[in-house]
Amino acid sequence: MMIKRLALATLGCLTLSSALANTPEVPDPALYRLDQLQLMQGFPPEPDKRVTAGNYLLNFPNLRWAFHHMRELRPSRAVTRGSGPVSVLPRGDDRRAEIEALSFIGPDGKTGNFADYLDGTYADATLIMHNGKVIYEAYHQGMPEQNPHILWSVTKSFTGLLATQLIHEGLLDPDAPVTRYVPELENSGWKGATVQQVLNMTADIAYNEVYGDPQSDVLKYAMAAGMAPAPHDYPGQLTLTDYLPGIAAGPGEHGRDFVYRTVHTEVLGWIVRRASNRSLAELISQRLWQPLGAEQDAYLLLDAIGTEWSGAGLNVTLRDLARFAEMLRNQGQFNGQQIVAPEVIATITAGADREAFKASGRDFMPGFSYRNQWWISHDADGSYYAMGVHGQLIHINPTTSTVVVRLSSHPYASSAVTMPWTLKAMAALADHLR
Amino acid sequence: MMIKRLALATLGCLTLSSALANTPEVPDPALYRLDQLQLMQGFPPEPDKRVTAGNYLLNFPNLRWAFHHMRELRPSRAVTRGSGPVSVLPRGDDRRAEIEALSFIGPDGKTGNFADYLDGTYADATLIMHNGKVIYEAYHQGMPEQNPHILWSVTKSFTGLLATQLIHEGLLDPDAPVTRYVPELENSGWKGATVQQVLNMTADIAYNEVYGDPQSDVLKYAMAAGMAPAPHDYPGQLTLTDYLPGIAAGPGEHGRDFVYRTVHTEVLGWIVRRASNRSLAELISQRLWQPLGAEQDAYLLLDAIGTEWSGAGLNVTLRDLARFAEMLRNQGQFNGQQIVAPEVIATITAGADREAFKASGRDFMPGFSYRNQWWISHDADGSYYAMGVHGQLIHINPTTSTVVVRLSSHPYASSAVTMPWTLKAMAALADHLR
Repeated sequence: MMIKRLALATLGCLTLSSALANTPEVPDPALYRLDQLQLMQGFPPEPDKRVTAGNYLLNFPNLRWAFHHMRELRPSRAVTRGSGPVSVLPRGDDRRAEIEALSFIGPDGKTGNFADYLDGTYADATLIMHNGKVIYEAYHQGMPEQNPHILWSVTKSFTGLLATQLIHEGLLDPDAPVTRYVPELENSGWKGATVQQVLNMTADIAYNEVYGDPQSDVLKYAMAAGMAPAPHDYPGQLTLTDYLPGIAAGPGEHGRDFVYRTVHTEVLGWIVRRASNRSLAELISQRLWQPLGAEQDAYLLLDAIGTEWSGAGLNVTLRDLARFAEMLRNQGQFNGQQIVAPEVIATITAGADREAFKASGRDFMPGFSYRNQWWISHDADGSYYAMGVHGQLIHINPTTSTVVVRLSSHPYASSAVTMPWTLKAMAALADHLR
Repeated sequence: MMIKRLALATLGCLTLSSALANTPEVPDPALYRLDQLQLMQGFPPEPDKRVTAGNYLLNFPNLRWAFHHMRELRPSRAVTRGSGPVSVLPRGDDRRAEIEALSFIGPDGKTGNFADYLDGTYADATLIMHNGKVIYEAYHQGMPEQNPHILWSVTKSFTGLLATQLIHEGLLDPDAPVTRYVPELENSGWKGATVQQVLNMTADIAYNEVYGDPQSDVLKYAMAAGMAPAPHDYPGQLTLTDYLPGIAAGPGEHGRDFVYRTVHTEVLGWIVRRASNRSLAELISQRLWQPLGAEQDAYLLLDAIGTEWSGAGLNVTLRDLARFAEMLRNQGQFNGQQIVAPEVIATITAGADREAFKASGRDFMPGFSYRNQWWISHDADGSYYAMGVHGQLIHINPTTSTVVVRLSSHPYASSAVTMPWTLKAMAALADHLR
């Protein structure tokens, strides 16, 4: 079940891997093992092994090194863990061998096992908790466990959770127009949209986030954020707060179709900062990282004037991501504290309109909805997800009391490539653990 | 004794503050208090309050914010503290009031006190230990204590200490030619120079590090390091390892005069990496930060291909800098461990040729020598220093068992402005504590 022949979807996912756009093949993971790539070794590294701000994203396999060294490429802001003790992450029996041998039928119709799944989807590190205890923790191919790893769009779920908590506390009104918090968007496509519509990505804007299209708006976003280098004579905007107000209204109406667009989360981050008068780094630190007793500082990536990428730029270690996910599974409790209100988690897991979701064309996620920046499966177990392009994952199954987190550096910037495998793997794991 | 009228020295110090080059006045610190500057407040900050990679250094007062937010402006590499417990930094009686009231005659001939000295030299944070205990710790004007602060040339003293320790361990030969470790320098000004001559900055190269001169080599260095932005059509080198080999031989001879040049330390860092097969970040982590039981990860700033600025780019918190300095005062012991060999410290504190030092024209540091990247006073107390441009400081007085560390953001990039005051202040402190 090596994942080699997957048709490349053109669905709306943040992607910049245009170098790969013309091949329908997923590169053989055995040819791109992190521990054999020799990237950034030596002083200085050989010219063809240098990973830079200019080549980390488009020149595969550079992202395999870059995704756990993002602060070495871009400006970043610390999300401090504070000075408190590190919380205990309870250990259960090590079930590594048993889990890796777990066999299931993949979306290609062939039988493989969990180890194949991890390898074939370019997992960098994977942790599984069951009934509140770690039963699987692996750093694949030499990925250093102390390095924060970029989460890409899993970041959105953090921003959405913070927004939902602010709503719960009465600091943010979901029914208010976006422009109440960000008047700069008065002449943009977000005019007339509510905060809730941004949370659910049903605000309608003229923005395409299409794979492999050099004219795609997503490239303009990436240059505004500093995620991709802009040519010196680039005439467009070079900060997020300059860029977002120029995005125009869409052809439809707000509040109808779900269409996945990262710029909605950048607007949400702007709203959250304005409503709380805190940076995202402060909020994540004060409300999550410090009470969770995180082991390591996390960090956020920044644009040229210090605005955090609120839809893409959070970097955390594997165990700290597990603490966060386990807290959610446990109705907001962890480390002896109520960290997030249970009502906040209930709001998210209730999901949103599944018909609105169908408009997105994400046939590989049947029955899902998208609520407050989380992917809700509406399956019998009530499982839900945070997903990052290139395969980063939070999976929470409340029924089987299971949490799975993974860090990943898949060559394709498309959940359509990895998610069908992940759904099968999570289903097999649930059946095994239930 | 407000420090307002200081003639601007043109001595060799890393400097980029050309915006200030035409004024002999030190701006009044009361006009540039960190807690009143409103830099980088709001989402986004007001245009005239934005600190960026392009304006942090030249547009005073931006450096007041930038120097404790360098990772938000530039790529950086973590110096991890590991996962061990934080070491105890023993507390003595708080002698803040008494120390701040300490009165002495400044280099301007007027009487002032220690608080005036700190204020007038733009100190951001100051810690004093006496007999192994903290007697003074202050974060001035709202400087956040958890933020690592750039040390500028205090970094050199870390690199020099590591080199001296590698020599002690037999991993580095001080008498070997530089080119044994860095063959890339075969056609450069370092040809024929020894490692020890680089350590003592007596290798002779064609390089001027002159204040306020837009044609100065120091600007080329800064652009190669990524410290200062290069114009898009800049024809020069944009990495340190491309830049250093192009520096030509000087008119004199190696091993004679001390001339302070940051590029020597960049070469030293290159040598240290090659000799140890470790990055500076790994070396500082493994040999200093982890055994010291540092509270926070430190970090190093990087050029465009990940080469650390080994002469300028270390960022640490105040208390961690104090742990490091106290370890040195205590003959390499701290946190129950022998961290640096006593012989290494003895080598450094023995100093170098004071006649060679005179060639540097540093009349404001009479009697000093420069040994292995440390400033040795040869005073009766045997005190020695690490100094950063803009006023960062380590001061160790073995006789009075005193350690002073300070973080600082003086508007002038010149030790000639701050060091005369620091020498008077340290002498007054020594007399008070002896």
